Amino acid sequence: MNELFGAIEAGGTKFVCATGTAAGEILQRVRIPTGDPADTISQVAAFFRSQPPVSAIGIGSFGPLQLDPRSSQYGFITSTPKTAWVQFDLLGAVRAAAGVPVAIDTDVNAAALGESRWGAGRGVRSFVYVTVGTGIGGALMADGTLLRGRSHLEMGHIRIPSPDSFPGICPYHGNCLEGLASGPAIEARWNIAAEHLPLDHPAWPLEIEYLAHACANWICTLVPERVILGGGVMRAELFPPLRARVRELLNDYLPLPPLNEYLVPSPLAGNAGILGALELAVSRAIPQLT
Amino acid sequence: MNELFGAIEAGGTKFVCATGTAAGEILQRVRIPTGDPADTISQVAAFFRSQPPVSAIGIGSFGPLQLDPRSSQYGFITSTPKTAWVQFDLLGAVRAAAGVPVAIDTDVNAAALGESRWGAGRGVRSFVYVTVGTGIGGALMADGTLLRGRSHLEMGHIRIPSPDSFPGICPYHGNCLEGLASGPAIEARWNIAAEHLPLDHPAWPLEIEYLAHACANWICTLVPERVILGGGVMRAELFPPLRARVRELLNDYLPLPPLNEYLVPSPLAGNAGILGALELAVSRAIPQLT
Repeated sequence: MNELFGAIEAGGTKFVCATGTAAGEILQRVRIPTGDPADTISQVAAFFRSQPPVSAIGIGSFGPLQLDPRSSQYGFITSTPKTAWVQFDLLGAVRAAAGVPVAIDTDVNAAALGESRWGAGRGVRSFVYVTVGTGIGGALMADGTLLRGRSHLEMGHIRIPSPDSFPGICPYHGNCLEGLASGPAIEARWNIAAEHLPLDHPAWPLEIEYLAHACANWICTLVPERVILGGGVMRAELFPPLRARVRELLNDYLPLPPLNEYLVPSPLAGNAGILGALELAVSRAIPQLT
Repeated sequence: MNELFGAIEAGGTKFVCATGTAAGEILQRVRIPTGDPADTISQVAAFFRSQPPVSAIGIGSFGPLQLDPRSSQYGFITSTPKTAWVQFDLLGAVRAAAGVPVAIDTDVNAAALGESRWGAGRGVRSFVYVTVGTGIGGALMADGTLLRGRSHLEMGHIRIPSPDSFPGICPYHGNCLEGLASGPAIEARWNIAAEHLPLDHPAWPLEIEYLAHACANWICTLVPERVILGGGVMRAELFPPLRARVRELLNDYLPLPPLNEYLVPSPLAGNAGILGALELAVSRAIPQLT
């Protein structure tokens, strides 16, 4: 029988737990609503007890997270609007509950890892992966390594030109990209959830304008080989006009491939995160696997 | 006697050529006005012939440059407003003239290398180096490696919010950062060269607003351990108000050290570029040293 690994996609509204193989095959999967930490971790532990043993578990988590390996709080959720989870030792709690090695990274970094192994990042030397959903987050995979700075990247919080005076909803920055273009920002502006907005709604040209400026900025700053956009807000229909606007903004300054190959949706249908968490468990060579 | 190395800082208005040691000591230096390629390279060759032999030469050049080692045009200047230099094989010309191994990188990457070895980047795991002068360019040094994408980075061409309708001067993007905040952009807006503008001129609060937004964006996107700003526009007096505005924009979202240690001037007094070019020659381990 194949060696099994565990994966946890830890989100603010749900924890998805799964078992799978090094080949990226998900065998079992369960969805646990995010409650208080003790109850949630207890359900996570119960899931893994109910399954054949796993060799290691990978976590892709909401955050911010403390990911400095020198920190005594490595693997903690640091600050979050979900107050019960502030300063919670997620890595330690899962390790204690499961009794196997556990690796942790941000949800976005995990999804980028999933894209690199199984999705639109396969064989691509450097790519940006961005998720546009409840928040906006991004990762850079370059030469097989996720870029890490003082902390994980926060590329959803860049400022971009805005055509109007909507103040945005980011509690820290108001009208940063996340404050203007995340799912909750769209809902706050139009009083309709993004998934219920018809495609001819004026929300979409505005969303494209925001995202095109952000893509142009990430492309100039990082000059990746590819940009992959995922997350609940990114409908397939947004890509053609988004590419057209990015092309206008960049104006052939950078030598890029055709944008329909360069600026692409995630092909993993929402599974990038759990597949990336699985890959975190598999990739024992990654330093944060403890 | 110490082994000697050569350095060339190739700019649009002047070529600075130097000899120096692996310890970063510059022994001889000459300034050659940038003319047509043949004449300029001939003067470069004459300088090195007049000196004791060097083991290798490093070039930090204006660009854009072709830096893909797989390209048959590796080391060429690709497109530039200086039409005589378009598609010029700078690497090959210097190698042929000097008869020693030659390494090439962008002027900004070379300066970042100089900062990392001798300046404000010493001992810093990851830093952004940005030069604000004739253009605006930036580099990311992370874990001892300059980030490279499809091509070198172009972080001076990001879009930021602008408080007015000045159209900017970037021939590609109009009001991108370089189009708004470079030395020529300041001069175009106020009809005075930046170096002659008094410190109480309204140009400066505007310049700080632009640069603060750009710094905040680079910090969110790359989360470096430090940001180093150099170039002819960056007077020492700009740093305190720039830090204050960056602090406002970031609003404690990221855990950063005090900004007077985090957002700092280049300490190399304009020598980052030539020292970095020297370091390119010294660091034979760097792949592009051919």
